[in-house]
Amino acid sequence: MDLTITLDRHSSLPLHQQVYEELRRAILTRRLLPGQKVPSTRALADTLQVSRATITQSYDRLLSEGYLETLVGSGTYVCVQLPDDLLHSTPVAVATNSQPLRVQLSDYGDRLGQTLFALQPSPMQPISFRYGQPALQHFPIALWRKLLSRYCLANSDWLDYGTDFQGYRPLRQAIANYLGRARAVRCHPDQLILTNGTQQALDLVMRLLINPGDRIGIEDPGYLSARRIFHSHGAGIVPIPVDEAGVIVEKLAHLDANSLRLVYVTPSHQFPTGSILSLSRRLELLAWAQQHPCLILEDDYDSEYRYQDRPIPALQGLDQNHSVIYIGTFSKVLFPSLRIGYLVVPPDLVSLFAQAKWLSDRQLPTLEQQVLTEFIEAGHLESHIRKMRSHYDQLRQTLVQALKQHFRERVMIFGEKAGIHVMVKLRTCWSDTEVIERAANVGVGLMSAQLHYFNPCDRGEFIFGYGDLDEAQIVEGIDCLAQVLGT
Amino acid sequence: MDLTITLDRHSSLPLHQQVYEELRRAILTRRLLPGQKVPSTRALADTLQVSRATITQSYDRLLSEGYLETLVGSGTYVCVQLPDDLLHSTPVAVATNSQPLRVQLSDYGDRLGQTLFALQPSPMQPISFRYGQPALQHFPIALWRKLLSRYCLANSDWLDYGTDFQGYRPLRQAIANYLGRARAVRCHPDQLILTNGTQQALDLVMRLLINPGDRIGIEDPGYLSARRIFHSHGAGIVPIPVDEAGVIVEKLAHLDANSLRLVYVTPSHQFPTGSILSLSRRLELLAWAQQHPCLILEDDYDSEYRYQDRPIPALQGLDQNHSVIYIGTFSKVLFPSLRIGYLVVPPDLVSLFAQAKWLSDRQLPTLEQQVLTEFIEAGHLESHIRKMRSHYDQLRQTLVQALKQHFRERVMIFGEKAGIHVMVKLRTCWSDTEVIERAANVGVGLMSAQLHYFNPCDRGEFIFGYGDLDEAQIVEGIDCLAQVLGT
Repeated sequence: MDLTITLDRHSSLPLHQQVYEELRRAILTRRLLPGQKVPSTRALADTLQVSRATITQSYDRLLSEGYLETLVGSGTYVCVQLPDDLLHSTPVAVATNSQPLRVQLSDYGDRLGQTLFALQPSPMQPISFRYGQPALQHFPIALWRKLLSRYCLANSDWLDYGTDFQGYRPLRQAIANYLGRARAVRCHPDQLILTNGTQQALDLVMRLLINPGDRIGIEDPGYLSARRIFHSHGAGIVPIPVDEAGVIVEKLAHLDANSLRLVYVTPSHQFPTGSILSLSRRLELLAWAQQHPCLILEDDYDSEYRYQDRPIPALQGLDQNHSVIYIGTFSKVLFPSLRIGYLVVPPDLVSLFAQAKWLSDRQLPTLEQQVLTEFIEAGHLESHIRKMRSHYDQLRQTLVQALKQHFRERVMIFGEKAGIHVMVKLRTCWSDTEVIERAANVGVGLMSAQLHYFNPCDRGEFIFGYGDLDEAQIVEGIDCLAQVLGT
Repeated sequence: MDLTITLDRHSSLPLHQQVYEELRRAILTRRLLPGQKVPSTRALADTLQVSRATITQSYDRLLSEGYLETLVGSGTYVCVQLPDDLLHSTPVAVATNSQPLRVQLSDYGDRLGQTLFALQPSPMQPISFRYGQPALQHFPIALWRKLLSRYCLANSDWLDYGTDFQGYRPLRQAIANYLGRARAVRCHPDQLILTNGTQQALDLVMRLLINPGDRIGIEDPGYLSARRIFHSHGAGIVPIPVDEAGVIVEKLAHLDANSLRLVYVTPSHQFPTGSILSLSRRLELLAWAQQHPCLILEDDYDSEYRYQDRPIPALQGLDQNHSVIYIGTFSKVLFPSLRIGYLVVPPDLVSLFAQAKWLSDRQLPTLEQQVLTEFIEAGHLESHIRKMRSHYDQLRQTLVQALKQHFRERVMIFGEKAGIHVMVKLRTCWSDTEVIERAANVGVGLMSAQLHYFNPCDRGEFIFGYGDLDEAQIVEGIDCLAQVLGT
């Protein structure tokens, strides 16, 4: 243990008194914790370059005053029971927001300060239909551990900084191959920038392309977390309505032609409605983008899980004009705390994005990049996705069936062809809040779709995530719900 | 394998022709790679919901034209030798910066575009005195692997998102305790924000506190990577000279009183000169900060390795007025690719920093946070630091002795009391570039200190990092150097 103590040899205070004061203060401010072992007198004397007698004298006083105690044959410790008066002091400031700030913030800081939000609490009922929750219990954790162990000892190169602004090259190659096969994304590995998930990808796009006041088109309803990032950068948000074929592209034509800098879309499984952007709308959107100084920001979340229909190629793969920035992540298909996502950017923007990533935080942890590379190249990723697709498909069918059976003509279900949630419109005599409360009372957690609308109001729309539930829970949950909502 | 193919049932083209075209394009654009297996006719027919005969017809044509080949009993593959004419096409755009940008960048993007830099190449000679390189070969990699394996299987909670804006709470607690013991930093765990290393910590400070045009005082010479981040945010840089007792605080008094928003310092081992900010200067700096609307940004890098002298408490621990933002990292004491660092911020700024971190990229990978927590709490961190301090001390003594022995009155050595590099001023008849070239010719890598000055010019100053060398290399390296520099 290192203990930093400042002694002043020119002070009028004797050294043993200074050591006493410093140790006492360390205990008072809990730099030394109750029960913690302190250095031996010999060790501390060596460290401080003073005589052992000096330290012994200081320790004796602390022992007699009840700050330290000696356990025979073991050493000297901070007393577990400190003198009463000490316990009343709260020497360390605890974080609080009550004081006025003494420093001036940047404009970015000011905006954040005006819109501080808490993590949206997930429902914590025994059966909670939470969105964005993959079935983590099915993640092949033992396999992941085996790969971690193997790469950990393969060599020690991974300990050092990477040599690549854009991320580990073999991983970029593996992702580019995978995207080509599975999503019809056409990209060279050198167009890929690896990021800490979708969140950092969105943030980098904002930093490089958006000044405060610039306008971004986003789907209404649309993904709240994305909107928060856009807001934090001072962007003006232009809502574009959504129907069962995805974002209504023709609405773009009614906007001031050149006023948008970006259009943010979730074509594979629109959030939260779940609609899939049709091929004709995709082509229409790309044609529009070609005629305007505006990029399409394609967040291809949930693209891995499609049921029934044939997959539709990503906008990025249909694009002929470098109008698309594509964002993907492994948070949902593997696990969220992995923190690996990626951007596919037009060639002329690559070096800027690479530099911005490097300036932000240099790189991702190397070991995880190596493990993920092997995971993809050995076919584990696609095998896991296949397995999970059939698992989720089963859950989805169970959910849809249960909802229809119990609610019949009083339920409408949207977005069931893809993803791991559906949007459900329930006709009841209660407000959205009342529905959520009644459900909670019988142990069922629901989330309203309201927050994701620009104009939040009661629509009777709820996001039913089913990823981390099992069939029995789904059946029981909908059963309880039906009872309490009076069907 | 998933293969995304778009069929248009209303098209005049027959389906088998569409399938043929799509597969051919996939091969041409290398979405399907030479040697790669393609789905069986039955599987693809199922996926696309067309008849098997349709697929067979398409495959037959691709086989006859040399795009596919069949291996008996194994399946159908993309030909390893594609028809010659295909090999001439380069269907995928390769990243390049030659085109003009078709989109407008943000001000941040513009600044980056004007100052694009490459990774500074490290010298790659057989014996290279590179700074900032810890002795990674001594990292207890087997222990780290054991902890990774244990936490990986302990439960699956770590797979999910964390619930804490500021980072894994037990890790913040462990770091706060450690900082109290070792650095006299006084902080509550709730003042800690975990970051992806120092780089992200600096970036968050910039985002929240600095508008373009705001001025930041930094040491001259000072850490180039920090300066680059400050520049990218459009900050004006005000150099403050450094002497053997660290940054010369009284120079601050001569500046326009309220013009600085931040002063960035490296008090434990000034970069690159290695001087240690004296206690009196520390108190002077804090007194100055108290009288101005300016925060001190304390980058406490290299604080773990001190030789001879007693440690001096961190500025943060001496501060009574919440004027200090403290930055630390595990990149050098553990390993760089871990990407875990931290900020200790004044209480009134905690929630802003937490939110900015969350908006930037949500959180660090959870598994590594858990492993690091155990590594600190079980005493491995401090034990490793102790071991490495004695290792580096030995290297340092060897280096200093070799330099003095060979160069005698022609060498001055700075900053040898701490850290894992020294700054060396050599009196020779060559320019800095010539010295580096002559050294490289005999297999010795040197780095000039020039880049870290505001006014780079020949001073004969070199940064001798010794962290990843051994004693024999150091002796041999200085020996070679002495021969080629004509002593």
